[in-house]
Formats: sequence, C-alpha cells, structure tokens
Amino acid sequence: MQNKTRPHVVVIGAGFGGLRAARAVAKYADRVTLIDRTNHHTFQPLLYQVATAGLSPGEIAAPIRWIVRRDENIEVLLGEVRDFDLQRKVIKLSDMEIGYDYLIVGAGATHAYFGHDNWEPFAPGLKSLEDAVEMRRRILLTFELAERRAANGEGQMQLNFVVVGGGPTGVELAGTLAEITHKVLAHEFHSIDPKRTRIILLEGGPRVLPAFAEDMSQSAQKQLERLGVEVHTSALVTRIEPGAVYMGETRMPTAVTLWAAGVAASPLGKKLGAPVDRAGRVLVSPDLSIPGHPEVFVIGDLAALKDENGKWLPGVAPVAMQEGAAVAKNIRRDREGKPRRNFQYFDKGILATIGRAAGVGQIRKLHISGYPAWLAWLFVHIFFLIGFRNRILVLVQWAWSYITFERGARLITGSNKLPGWTELEKEQAPPVDAEHEFSASRRSAR
Amino acid sequence: MQNKTRPHVVVIGAGFGGLRAARAVAKYADRVTLIDRTNHHTFQPLLYQVATAGLSPGEIAAPIRWIVRRDENIEVLLGEVRDFDLQRKVIKLSDMEIGYDYLIVGAGATHAYFGHDNWEPFAPGLKSLEDAVEMRRRILLTFELAERRAANGEGQMQLNFVVVGGGPTGVELAGTLAEITHKVLAHEFHSIDPKRTRIILLEGGPRVLPAFAEDMSQSAQKQLERLGVEVHTSALVTRIEPGAVYMGETRMPTAVTLWAAGVAASPLGKKLGAPVDRAGRVLVSPDLSIPGHPEVFVIGDLAALKDENGKWLPGVAPVAMQEGAAVAKNIRRDREGKPRRNFQYFDKGILATIGRAAGVGQIRKLHISGYPAWLAWLFVHIFFLIGFRNRILVLVQWAWSYITFERGARLITGSNKLPGWTELEKEQAPPVDAEHEFSASRRSAR
Repeated sequence: MQNKTRPHVVVIGAGFGGLRAARAVAKYADRVTLIDRTNHHTFQPLLYQVATAGLSPGEIAAPIRWIVRRDENIEVLLGEVRDFDLQRKVIKLSDMEIGYDYLIVGAGATHAYFGHDNWEPFAPGLKSLEDAVEMRRRILLTFELAERRAANGEGQMQLNFVVVGGGPTGVELAGTLAEITHKVLAHEFHSIDPKRTRIILLEGGPRVLPAFAEDMSQSAQKQLERLGVEVHTSALVTRIEPGAVYMGETRMPTAVTLWAAGVAASPLGKKLGAPVDRAGRVLVSPDLSIPGHPEVFVIGDLAALKDENGKWLPGVAPVAMQEGAAVAKNIRRDREGKPRRNFQYFDKGILATIGRAAGVGQIRKLHISGYPAWLAWLFVHIFFLIGFRNRILVLVQWAWSYITFERGARLITGSNKLPGWTELEKEQAPPVDAEHEFSASRRSAR
Repeated sequence: MQNKTRPHVVVIGAGFGGLRAARAVAKYADRVTLIDRTNHHTFQPLLYQVATAGLSPGEIAAPIRWIVRRDENIEVLLGEVRDFDLQRKVIKLSDMEIGYDYLIVGAGATHAYFGHDNWEPFAPGLKSLEDAVEMRRRILLTFELAERRAANGEGQMQLNFVVVGGGPTGVELAGTLAEITHKVLAHEFHSIDPKRTRIILLEGGPRVLPAFAEDMSQSAQKQLERLGVEVHTSALVTRIEPGAVYMGETRMPTAVTLWAAGVAASPLGKKLGAPVDRAGRVLVSPDLSIPGHPEVFVIGDLAALKDENGKWLPGVAPVAMQEGAAVAKNIRRDREGKPRRNFQYFDKGILATIGRAAGVGQIRKLHISGYPAWLAWLFVHIFFLIGFRNRILVLVQWAWSYITFERGARLITGSNKLPGWTELEKEQAPPVDAEHEFSASRRSAR
C-alpha cells in the first residue's frame, strides 16, 4: 500500500494551522504524523468564554484523534517535541526520534510577561483550557470568598477585576466579566452586591483594539463603558503583586488580575536555527519554509511574515489555516515538479465581541459595530465549528447558554485557594498539594 | 420581616439529602445557611459517566447558588466545617463560627481503602468531579502512551484495566469501559489495538451487586461478560502497587487500576460525639437526630439507620432525599408543638446500569434486566434531573452523547504523567508541579 514516492510529513501542533496542514497534505503524503502536547484541539477564540463561565471546556475542544478519524494515513501522537536535527531530518522527543521528509511546525504561542515571569501567579494568562479553567476558578472563587467574609461581618471587600491588555482577548474578557457580574451573579449572593464589582481594563497603548481602525477602537471603548467596564488607555503596568497592580507610582488594588497583554512564540522556534524576531517568531521565507531548509515550514503564531503591504500578518486563526493549506499545496507542487508559490493572505476581516450583543468588525472597507458586529462574530464562529461539532447542536447549546447564562459552566474545580486571601488559605488548601494552585498557568508557560 | 419564632437552620453538605432538607425547611425557617466544600451539587450517580468520558463535568453538576436562587432565605456559603460545639450550638470553620437553632449534617462519604490509604495514588476512587476527571485522564492517557510506545517500535503494552469492587459503581465503570475501549477508541488508534484491552472486574465477595437479589447478580455478570468484561468474584485484593494488583500470591499486571470497593463516612460524623459504626456513620435515633441533641440531625451517607426489617438503609440518593424531607417535616412539627415522626424509607427499588443498553433493576418483587432495566434507569435519572437542568436539553444532549459517544468529554486535562510509566514522566511532567497528579484524589480523601 505504501507509495515510496510519497513523503512522510511530520506536523507539530494541532492548532488551526497544524490541523489544516495535516489534513490537506494527507492527500499527497504517504503518511502524516501529527504531534501535540495535549490530546485535544482547542478552539482558542472561545477560551475567554470558558474563562468567564459562559461555555464548558468540552464545548470548545475536541480530541484530535476524533477530528482526523477518517484521515486514515494521519497518525496522532501525544508528546512534546524537544529538539530538531535538521541535518538528519529527525525531530526529538524525550524517548524517541521521528524522521521526516517534510516538517511543518505550528507550535503556536503562549502568553508572555515581557520578562516579568514572576507576575504569572498573580495574573494568569489565557492560552489553554487549563488556563481558562484557572481564570474561571479565580473569578468565581473571589465572589464566594467575599460573600463568606461579608456573612462573617467582615464588611464588603473591594472587588476590582483588572484585565491587563486591551487587545481582542482583553476586550472580550472585560466585556463578558461585566455582564456576568452585573447581570448573572447579582441575583445569587446575599451578603455582597456583585453590582459593586469594578471591571477595569488597562491598555498600555493609546487605544483598545490597536489592530483595528481608530473609529472601531472608539466604538469598542464606548460599548465597553456602556456595559460598565472602566477603560484606562496609556496605562502601562509596571508591577503586579497579590492584591495590586502598579502603573508607575499609581497602585490599583485588585481582587483578581487577568493577563491579556502579551504573547511569545513557542521556544521551539529558536531551536530550528533560523532567525527569529523579538517575540521568538521564526522569520520565514515567502513560501513559509526556513532559509536553507525548503523541507521545513513554519506556520501560524510561530511564523513571522509580512503581507504585500509590508505589514506583519496577525496571529489569528484564518492566517494559520491559510498558511497550513498553502504549505500542503507547495508540498504537492514539489512532488509534481512545479515551482512553489509564495503565501498570500486573503484577509476576510477581523471581528471582536464585547459581551453578549456587542462587538466591532472590519471587513475590508466595511466597519460595523454593536449588534450587527456581534451577529457577524456569532455566525463566523459557528461556521468555523463545522466539522468540529455538529452545527445544530452548537446552535442549540449556545442559544441555551445565551438565554440561561449556562450554569454547568460555573463550576469551581481544583483548590479553593487564592493568592492574596491568606486567612482562608489555611482552611481551603488541600493538605498535600501546595503546588496545585498555579499549575495550570505554569504548565502553559513551559 | 424576620420572625423570631422561626429557627435558623444550618445545613452542612449540598448533596441529595442536604439540598432537599434545605429547600424543604426554608419554608418554615427564618433562614437557612447551606454550607458545602465546593460551589456545586454533583449528580453522583453519573460520576462514572464522566470518568469514562461519556458526559462532561458540566453536564452532571450545577452551582448550588443557582439551584437555590429562588429560595430567598437560603444563604449559601463555600467552606469546610472543622468542628462543632453542640453545647453552644455553633459550627466552626477555620475563620468563623456560625450559630444555629437546628443543625442538619449531610456531609456524605468518600471512598476508603480499608486502612490502605497508600493504595490511593495507584487506584483512584470516585466521589467528586475531580476524582472523575482524574479517572478519565488516566484511562485516556494510558491509550495515548501505549500508542506512542507502539509507534516507537517498543511493541504492544499490556492494557489491563482493573476495577476493584463489584458494587453498582464498579459494575457501571467496568461495563462502560468495555464499551468505550472496544467500540469507540478501537477506530482511532493506528499502532495499538484497543480491542485487545482487557477489562477486569474484581469483587471480594461471592457475587457482583451484593445489594441486589442473586438472580440479578447472575444476570449482571452475564451482561458484563457479554460486553467483554472479565468478572472475578471472591477475588480479594491484598495489595496495590503501580502496574499491579495482588490477590494473595496472585499478581495481576495492570495499566490502570480504579477503586470502587469501599466508602467511609465523612470524619465530621465522629466530631458530633454521637456513637458511630465501623465505617464512621453516625448511629442516629429513629427521627434522625443524635442522642441527647434533638436539634441535631444526620442524614444521607453519613447516617446509619435500620429499616423496619432490621436492614441497614443503603447509601443511595433516594434514602438521602427522603431523610432530608423527613427532617424538615419534624422541624415543622416541633414548631407546631406536635410530636416527631420516625423516619420510614419508601423503597422505590434499585437500578444499576451496565454499559449503554443493559442493566438490572429490582422494583419490589419485580426483577428486570437487560434493555428494560437500562430504559428504566435512563428515565429515573432524567426524572431526577428535573429542576436541575432543563429536561429537554438533557434529553437532547444525552441522545447526542449516546449516538456519537460525545467527543468533548474525551479531554485529557492536567498533567501528562501516569504512575508506572516512568520513562515518559521525565518528558511529560510539568516542571514545578510534582504534586499535581494525585491532587484530585487526595483532596477528596481529606
């Protein structure tokens, strides 16, 4: 059955780019080995929904094996790639090496703290399911602990939820947080008043959503403020500690701090030996291969490439997916003896949502905001979920979540400890498991 | 608004008994304080479905605050009760005391290892959502690691899944495991053959489901064997270590060991100062109060009481719920100056399911097995979920899960480490979090 003229392709990472590349190239390959650190593909654009208890982890993730179950020549392996030997054409895991004819690296990015990794325990980021569940745990647990203190006659705690970073993730987190605290949780507590919660969005630059046009940024800020979010621009965070965020001399007390400010590419990028930019992204050739190694491609958030206007391509799902498809096509052209084509990004527009019925969108020259932008966002995301989950079931579940503010998603799992709530730690800490609390965020920072 | 003649009732534990008691007594009480260690009520009879990746955690749990959101005089507190002072009528948490007029203790039970607590890391039990997710992690990860070894030319691993304990939980786990491995996962792996997986159920007594009649036990064993489960009765486990279970001199190699053999009551029972049985259950008076303290009741798995035939009442949801309702009624009778009534259990029957279309059931004299028992089980469980989640949505979701073998539930979250797979631990272990792996099971063993 094996065709010796067909290549063995190894794909690292089952994100949007890696999955698309693996499934597209499987048609021309002898076999494809798809390696990921987890057993599931995560629908990253909806992680903020899990973090704010709108959706459950199982609703935005699917096992990789299940997704490629009909692609019979795709072999899925759970594992973490440690290194490469591009001369010998092998990738290295701790206990095995895997040879390849072509290598496609889509190892992605994780959140980064600009050299302040010590901030992470006090301001978790959002790149994996575990991260999202950790954010959810902190948000929900903060209300529980505040309620208990108030019930014990210790008065009202300050309940400042601070989101650092005004990009799409920060805007989505802040908007949804405002809704859940002011609309949902408001009715379920007796001793505290969740409506007194302050949701504060800190953006270091002059405006939120800097990747959008200026009128879109202004609209987004207005929509956020309408939901009750306090938006601070040109607010550069210089220090984070338990219970406080500093902007220079200004100290802002916090109950929960969420990090949405920076990403860094996977450290695997540097190990390829190709030039990288400051964020660790690999400076790829126009065909997405790396210099001197036409058989090695880098795609998605790990790749740095400019479009025809000299602008860096953004780290979003459509770029990664189109890159994955383009790489597969070039591998086919190689086999057919045709010259490769340079990657060209077809920009369908960008969308960001703000809470449950607001958002902004830029589709080429068209700028939309408010409810239409939110509707567009909804349909684009459901469209993306085709083949991922049943479209009708997703609609039913989302409609349900939308109407009821899904309860099952509001679970606190794991430890009952929070940084900055020292008195309660004595009681709530699991006896042997002092390390548990930050494990989710630590893991993703590897 | 407050009525001084109405009591303040404190309820510990939001399981089936505690929830029922709190909601029923709220009608006659000034206020009710409902305390639980978690923020959610767990539908325990379906935990095995989460453990075997059939349902997601959010589908079998709901926030306590949400459940009682319309009972305005129920105050929900997240916290762990440490001790009691029955003289002063207060319960003690680490940082606060709460007074009561009536106290209802429904703190439940956890899995127990008959004095072999050192077995827990190698044979997790099933009493909480965290436990279920840990079981799921081990089951799914074992297949991933075996696949990777086989892909690396290290040959086929033995894949023995051993369930210790032939009660309802053990039977349900073994039956569902057989189905998922032989029917679902079989198609998704390339290098290993999940059909070669052995599912082994070890029961120390002479028959499985000892709480059922003998013909039901025989039927259950036959149905299990038809699904491919190897059932060993009179198989008393004497030692558990990573990769093996011992029955005396007999050593059985294992890939995953699951514990479904024993439960012990919450340690809170002993702190009440009332007599307890060997499993730590409180020997309550016929009205469910404890000797010398008519204002203190114990219900559910923490209570030990005999029925009119001198048989101990089983630790199942219907007993707990009826006890909760009975206690609420007796509190009302106290306020009305009427004498209390002794608790009488109305036995509607018992059901156990075996995989997706089999089971056994005893409804008084009626013994059913196979598909009818499974159907009865399904309807009883959906009926119980009324008011818990929307009935139609549950039906849709379950039908969906039934048809597709729900994919979202098949997530591996947390560490990629497994005991007994030492070579891979080097790679898969999160760097700082050596304690993470067993945290879920440890927590519930407090």
